[in-house]
Amino acid sequence: MVKLQHIEIDTRGKDDMVDISERVAEIVAGSGAVNGQALIFVEGSTGGLSTIEYEPGLIADFPALMDKLVPAGKTYCHDQTWHDGNGHAHLRATLIGPSLTVPFAQKRMLLGTWQQIVFLEFDIRPRRRRLAVQVTGE
Amino acid sequence: MVKLQHIEIDTRGKDDMVDISERVAEIVAGSGAVNGQALIFVEGSTGGLSTIEYEPGLIADFPALMDKLVPAGKTYCHDQTWHDGNGHAHLRATLIGPSLTVPFAQKRMLLGTWQQIVFLEFDIRPRRRRLAVQVTGE
Amino acid sequence: MVKLQHIEIDTRGKDDMVDISERVAEIVAGSGAVNGQALIFVEGSTGGLSTIEYEPGLIADFPALMDKLVPAGKTYCHDQTWHDGNGHAHLRATLIGPSLTVPFAQKRMLLGTWQQIVFLEFDIRPRRRRLAVQVTGE
Repeated sequence: MVKLQHIEIDTRGKDDMVDISERVAEIVAGSGAVNGQALIFVEGSTGGLSTIEYEPGLIADFPALMDKLVPAGKTYCHDQTWHDGNGHAHLRATLIGPSLTVPFAQKRMLLGTWQQIVFLEFDIRPRRRRLAVQVTGE
Repeated sequence: MVKLQHIEIDTRGKDDMVDISERVAEIVAGSGAVNGQALIFVEGSTGGLSTIEYEPGLIADFPALMDKLVPAGKTYCHDQTWHDGNGHAHLRATLIGPSLTVPFAQKRMLLGTWQQIVFLEFDIRPRRRRLAVQVTGE
Repeated sequence: MVKLQHIEIDTRGKDDMVDISERVAEIVAGSGAVNGQALIFVEGSTGGLSTIEYEPGLIADFPALMDKLVPAGKTYCHDQTWHDGNGHAHLRATLIGPSLTVPFAQKRMLLGTWQQIVFLEFDIRPRRRRLAVQVTGE
């Protein structure tokens, strides 16, 4: 069986990192599937998905790493054309990737104890984000 | 159901970024599945897959970012052994990853309006690339 | 059908890169499915998965790249709180991602000739790692 739902989140814009683990866990638990996988997908080109230990230190460290690797202050060709100042957000999204797949068994995702699923907001302004969560299983 | 097809593309070599969204969409539409997911996979170790807003600015920005993060000019241990000068291409491929999974519903992929699926050519010479597209759904 | 197994590996800690291709191939071959996909997932927040040409040059190059992009010597906010000195390991894991999906056909994974599946150990000490391998197919 394949079942699709969406998660909507309101982000604070640049550098926001939202723990969506519980929202995904609820969708898995309510899907009717016992074993399978949850595919989470960002419909958009300025956000990413990954997992992290969701604690204040890393919540500060990860955006700092992104600022080092893909500086926000630099002017990118994208910005020269579109003047929206979020060229770095697009590049970060491509680097991190828009999809994440998490297996589950007995209706529970196989995450480590200190491992949360996060939506990474790279855009510069607060946004309402829509994430697809597609459960496949039996 | 599981259905496998391949996409063949000819790249221009280093820094080429090929929009394969329509090719994948056709495979999804012709698969017979209404809801499910398309797994795209690079069979090879010098290319990657991600999504991006496919416009001239970012088409220039992304290779520039790769050149900054994983310089092409540096001599890597890989090159000292194999003398093929594409050590950076291997490293970029590992960094970005060889697979991407995109969900679809009612035969249409759940991509954002400005979000295209791209094959990222990291190798230094033009290549014929073979990408697996495996549709799973019902 | 959906079938779950686990791979256990003992890593040497920082910069270890373990080729798990054969272990995954055995699980695929023994799953009973002919066509489908293998989802590999790291249960933990200091390791990653990708593919690479598994040869001595790149086995040295990739950790060197990680050291450049996400230096181990720097003190991260994570370390100031937890004093475990592995902030960089967490950040690398989030950058690379915890999951990889590989399609297979006729019981064989669609990998390139020079493309191996690797577990990337980012933590600083040797660890016993548990990876989920979930086969979905028919």
